[in-house]
Amino acid sequence: MSRVLSIVTGANRGFGSSICQEFVKFSPNKEQHLDFILFARSADSLKNTKESIKTLSKVANVIEEYGVEMSDIPQVEKTFKDCLDKIEWNKYSKICLVNNHGTLYNLDKIDTFTDFQHIQKNNDINITSFVTISSLFLRKVKALPNFKDLEVTMVNITSLAAIKPFESWGLYCSSKAFREMFSNVIAEENKSSPNFKVLNYSPGPLDTDMQKEVRETCSSEETRQFYLELKKNNNLVAPGDSARALAKLVFTYEFTTGQHIDYYDIKEK
Amino acid sequence: MSRVLSIVTGANRGFGSSICQEFVKFSPNKEQHLDFILFARSADSLKNTKESIKTLSKVANVIEEYGVEMSDIPQVEKTFKDCLDKIEWNKYSKICLVNNHGTLYNLDKIDTFTDFQHIQKNNDINITSFVTISSLFLRKVKALPNFKDLEVTMVNITSLAAIKPFESWGLYCSSKAFREMFSNVIAEENKSSPNFKVLNYSPGPLDTDMQKEVRETCSSEETRQFYLELKKNNNLVAPGDSARALAKLVFTYEFTTGQHIDYYDIKEK
Repeated sequence: MSRVLSIVTGANRGFGSSICQEFVKFSPNKEQHLDFILFARSADSLKNTKESIKTLSKVANVIEEYGVEMSDIPQVEKTFKDCLDKIEWNKYSKICLVNNHGTLYNLDKIDTFTDFQHIQKNNDINITSFVTISSLFLRKVKALPNFKDLEVTMVNITSLAAIKPFESWGLYCSSKAFREMFSNVIAEENKSSPNFKVLNYSPGPLDTDMQKEVRETCSSEETRQFYLELKKNNNLVAPGDSARALAKLVFTYEFTTGQHIDYYDIKEK
Repeated sequence: MSRVLSIVTGANRGFGSSICQEFVKFSPNKEQHLDFILFARSADSLKNTKESIKTLSKVANVIEEYGVEMSDIPQVEKTFKDCLDKIEWNKYSKICLVNNHGTLYNLDKIDTFTDFQHIQKNNDINITSFVTISSLFLRKVKALPNFKDLEVTMVNITSLAAIKPFESWGLYCSSKAFREMFSNVIAEENKSSPNFKVLNYSPGPLDTDMQKEVRETCSSEETRQFYLELKKNNNLVAPGDSARALAKLVFTYEFTTGQHIDYYDIKEK
């Protein structure tokens, strides 16, 4: 039986780690092998995700893990190319790339920015590495002899912030808007391939370390209060719940390429 | 009588040069002084724009001109800070920054990208320099003692590509989507200041050197044919016509902050 391959970035913690676990739990055929390739800033940090995958299933495995600094574009290009070259593509019938990595930049109002080289570096993390990984992946899979027999998904982890401006989220909103538009152009350029789909998945306000960072560093008191209330009233989304909804979309393949889907639109009542 | 100050980037040719000329022509009060500060890759290249402004009016002047490489973020930061520090702000009653500079990147389909360091550099031109200039300008004008008495406009030269994905325009579309969202967050963060407005102005398909580049380099035959037809059938927009429509918006100040306005929505019949 042919296998499923999932390549997940930012897989060491938070939503990235939940995605891997829920893919394993959701997989409709319990005997189908699920192979994972994981990316994070350091390969060591992937230990927990790797163990949680192994614990959940005998047929799920992390076959490769890579440490890469996403702001270092030549390193991203080289590492991702090496990764793609090592894959035994003919083993798979379903392939999914999840671009989950990203940074908050800062949570300052735009008129208080001071460190533009930090912003430049963070643009490379959220934007340029995303472009690099997406483009290399696309070229590789489209050139496979069995491309037409594969079910391919590229997931961009996006946000409500990609489509709605929020005070003190200027760079985060804008980089997510970039990624969403880039994914939509990929969808447009590949609309003649029904076996290839792009998904912009907005996971909701997740109860992860990133939210903790928001509560601790947001300079807009109004926005900070909003997120403190969300946490206090237990209205943050459990990463596992949102990752399960994503797993369902990826495995059932029931979405339109280029679609922006928010967790709140599809969560089970 | 107090003066109008316009700071225009990419002012050496094409639409940037037309903006300067139409601002002078449209200015409702023919005795009001119009001062310009111009940016381009090299200060020498601004000679034509400078002369055309001088020819049009006795009260219009280029008071400073700067050559700056927009991909060099420390240089952009230093040059723009120096520029802002030299301005005698109390001479002005109306101030307009036009972020007009930008690059096409490439016109290749996303699965054919190869030069990711070129993309990184172009992200800095279209995105990081835009963030740097916008943020520094905002901080400076909001700290002016007479800020509340000024009529301030920040214009982002955008495109239909910012809101609609086009084949082979992946990076251009996405960088314009970034800029538009960033401008919308600026609008959101400053909505309590009625004397401060952000405008996303989409000038239409202009008959400039950039369009020539499109016709010559676009890898999608379908898209290329579309632009060849536009040129052949005389359906490209004259830069002066579109710049005049922008001048009218800026001088009448009749638009909502954060609005996306397309030339085709407002052009005179």
